[in-house]
Amino acid sequence: MTDLTNQETTKLYEAVASRIRRLVSHGTFKAGDRLPSVRRLSNELQVSISTVLEAYRLLESQGFIEVRPQSGYYVRTSFPSLPAEIEVSHPPSSPSQVGVDELVMRVMEDTRDASLIPLGAAIPNPQLLPTQKLNRSLIAAARLMESCGHIYDIPPGCEALRIQVAQRTLAAGCTLTPDEFVTTCGCLEAISLSLRAICQPGDTVAIESPTYFGILQALQFLGLRALEVPTHPRTGISVEALEKALRHNRVSACVVVTNFNNPLGCLMPDDAKRKLVEVLAEREIPLIEDDIYGDLSFSDERPHVAKAYDRNGLVLLCSSYSKDLAPGYRVGWVAPGRYKRAVMRLKASTNIATPTLTQLALADFLANGGYDRHLSRLRRIYACQVALVAQAVLEYFPTGTRVSQPQGGFVLWVEMPPQVDSLHLYQEALRVGITLAPGPIFSAKQGYRNFLRLNCAWWSEAVEKALPTLGRLVAREAGMAEP
Amino acid sequence: MTDLTNQETTKLYEAVASRIRRLVSHGTFKAGDRLPSVRRLSNELQVSISTVLEAYRLLESQGFIEVRPQSGYYVRTSFPSLPAEIEVSHPPSSPSQVGVDELVMRVMEDTRDASLIPLGAAIPNPQLLPTQKLNRSLIAAARLMESCGHIYDIPPGCEALRIQVAQRTLAAGCTLTPDEFVTTCGCLEAISLSLRAICQPGDTVAIESPTYFGILQALQFLGLRALEVPTHPRTGISVEALEKALRHNRVSACVVVTNFNNPLGCLMPDDAKRKLVEVLAEREIPLIEDDIYGDLSFSDERPHVAKAYDRNGLVLLCSSYSKDLAPGYRVGWVAPGRYKRAVMRLKASTNIATPTLTQLALADFLANGGYDRHLSRLRRIYACQVALVAQAVLEYFPTGTRVSQPQGGFVLWVEMPPQVDSLHLYQEALRVGITLAPGPIFSAKQGYRNFLRLNCAWWSEAVEKALPTLGRLVAREAGMAEP
Repeated sequence: MTDLTNQETTKLYEAVASRIRRLVSHGTFKAGDRLPSVRRLSNELQVSISTVLEAYRLLESQGFIEVRPQSGYYVRTSFPSLPAEIEVSHPPSSPSQVGVDELVMRVMEDTRDASLIPLGAAIPNPQLLPTQKLNRSLIAAARLMESCGHIYDIPPGCEALRIQVAQRTLAAGCTLTPDEFVTTCGCLEAISLSLRAICQPGDTVAIESPTYFGILQALQFLGLRALEVPTHPRTGISVEALEKALRHNRVSACVVVTNFNNPLGCLMPDDAKRKLVEVLAEREIPLIEDDIYGDLSFSDERPHVAKAYDRNGLVLLCSSYSKDLAPGYRVGWVAPGRYKRAVMRLKASTNIATPTLTQLALADFLANGGYDRHLSRLRRIYACQVALVAQAVLEYFPTGTRVSQPQGGFVLWVEMPPQVDSLHLYQEALRVGITLAPGPIFSAKQGYRNFLRLNCAWWSEAVEKALPTLGRLVAREAGMAEP
Repeated sequence: MTDLTNQETTKLYEAVASRIRRLVSHGTFKAGDRLPSVRRLSNELQVSISTVLEAYRLLESQGFIEVRPQSGYYVRTSFPSLPAEIEVSHPPSSPSQVGVDELVMRVMEDTRDASLIPLGAAIPNPQLLPTQKLNRSLIAAARLMESCGHIYDIPPGCEALRIQVAQRTLAAGCTLTPDEFVTTCGCLEAISLSLRAICQPGDTVAIESPTYFGILQALQFLGLRALEVPTHPRTGISVEALEKALRHNRVSACVVVTNFNNPLGCLMPDDAKRKLVEVLAEREIPLIEDDIYGDLSFSDERPHVAKAYDRNGLVLLCSSYSKDLAPGYRVGWVAPGRYKRAVMRLKASTNIATPTLTQLALADFLANGGYDRHLSRLRRIYACQVALVAQAVLEYFPTGTRVSQPQGGFVLWVEMPPQVDSLHLYQEALRVGITLAPGPIFSAKQGYRNFLRLNCAWWSEAVEKALPTLGRLVAREAGMAEP
């Protein structure tokens, strides 16, 4: 590409490449689709054949599309192998108090400001959610409410929803009955109730490092200590390291996001999940499994959950519909194994019941709304958008920047040069209208100071423009020339 | 009445009295209304004048209606003075662990069985709630959701709702701004978050005795100890006794249902509320005030809350719309005073946010749905139904039975002869299809064994028939002849 010296021409083929990216990110073309021929695109966009060719070469070099001989250009199905990948984490090996909440609150509060570019909290773009269909389900549910739904829907919660959830958990390798689920106000409540069912204040809980800040907040407010376990950016928590840590620490529970961990996007292989369950079961340590991103694989395969290997009722499987359907509904669930009665009591003592209406609406949507079709579209879009953000980061951030290679979900974990302070970067980014999630909120001891997490669910021209801006800020923080 | 010897005639005038009661309980006639003249009713019901006269005399002797000379028969406006009233409580004077949850769960689980006569959990009758109007608000909210509502509505929660709540809290004597409120999933969550914002496990919390079992459950699961304070059945917690108890115990917080305490229905006079706030403020002890029944006064006056006298931000005022609009919505709120930031963080770490849609729907209903009109109707109906249940209890339960004289809400607290075990009665009542709330779940140490609480929100022929049945069971438990 660099042999093109004319400034105008450079801009033109980049603009073409950018337009193709956008078509893919908005679902016009999906992973695996053949792109228009060079000639056709040249006609359609009214640019020269050589410009289209340059654009396709640029996208190919970024791993975004691939050429198949005698066939044409295709959108890549798998996430491209990137030159600079995050390494396995090395958190401190002793348990610690957790102190992240004020920072987390600030990042969450940014979501109230619609003028900010939303690269912070992991919130899906409402424009990608099936709002109209959900509303139809909601009105159907409201009609049901006239007869029954104004009553407290006390634990275990809405049966129609538990039936749908039980059916869908089959795909994750579990044969569970509706009776084995308790509905909750979102996944974090499921995790929080599970922790309370198992632990006493002062207990130690083993977690991934980095991990979702909501889990850290829950630990902090329940007076629990965190034992951070090294976690591989592609294969998840190191079961070997966990086993070793268990020899030196008395651990009451373990919380793991087995599929597409937030912030890493890593996927534990089935064998590792089985091994994790065994290692913990040997010591009678319950596993709280957060599967909130499990349905959002970038491949067509729905990964198993660790709960599929649970023989002792020691795995408490938690999830919700906040990442793929309706964050504002606040409907989640837990299959608490042998802790079911304890979780039900805690739920009743926390807020009596999960709201009736939204449960009924989701049950209706899951049964009749085309959830699978929606998911399949959403997964493709998220995969593309994560790839787009990753490419942009590698393009615009200074040398030394590395990124995760997520296999699902919609967030990207970014390691910046060591001198960058992401807390300061967070403030600077806010000044130019961008919010992001600084690395320290993903660890109990506020490590990961030169890391940040980017929400890739919102792709737009504004986001596309924000990433170079962010790159410049990072370069300035790093004391480096802009790339 | 007893001079009527003819069996047929006796049944007839009782049937007429019962029909008049029902007309009142269903709102055809309300407190203060003039009833039809004897002659007119005789014509309308096709019974003799003497039968109507006997019916009116029976209702008058029960304190249900009154004669005004030269004017006619009227539905009484105030709760009649009953011959047998509950006395002030004398709970143990030392703090204790709480252990009520399994029993509470069983009573709550009865609500799932629609075939049971619902005298147990304090759930309003959905037929008395403005479901259709709420549904209209809901659909309006769903339309709003398309643009904004799928986002997490993070703490402090929905502004439109907080504005409505702030406006309505004026009537309770508070000038609070929308910024001073945090929305929650119901009132119990508000109480639970408040307790967590203030207390550490092992701390002691002063409460009324008897008190709402949800508060006891929350204490139990947060590892807090309960200090039960003597409570007068009409004027509420004894501030004098509380002051004395505070001299001998280190107390971290106090939880009081100031208006129409559940289960007593008592109302603290304004002076007592002011004194309560002062006594606690002197010692820097926060007051968690549960005002969930505050809008349900049997008189036309909306009582003040203790928060109205708070000068130090030490009162955390909690309430919800579960008793008068939509239990299944699970929308409540807290005005946490100086604990606002702590409550917001705890809320975020518990379940991130309150569901968006139901908050928007309630905000719309409160602004446009005729809440005041609805409340005024509901209060009259609850007042009548509580009176009807109280009368029936005094009629059908054995000698020695005493009842509370609620001034608001919709529950009745019943003291039975000392030999009656309400836990056993609970089981026996279930066998004949009646659920009730046994006394022991209203105290930390499971006292009040010969007490029970009756939900009076559901009046129907089935309830009317169930009360004599319950009376016979109580008489049998008491080893007494049926009255």
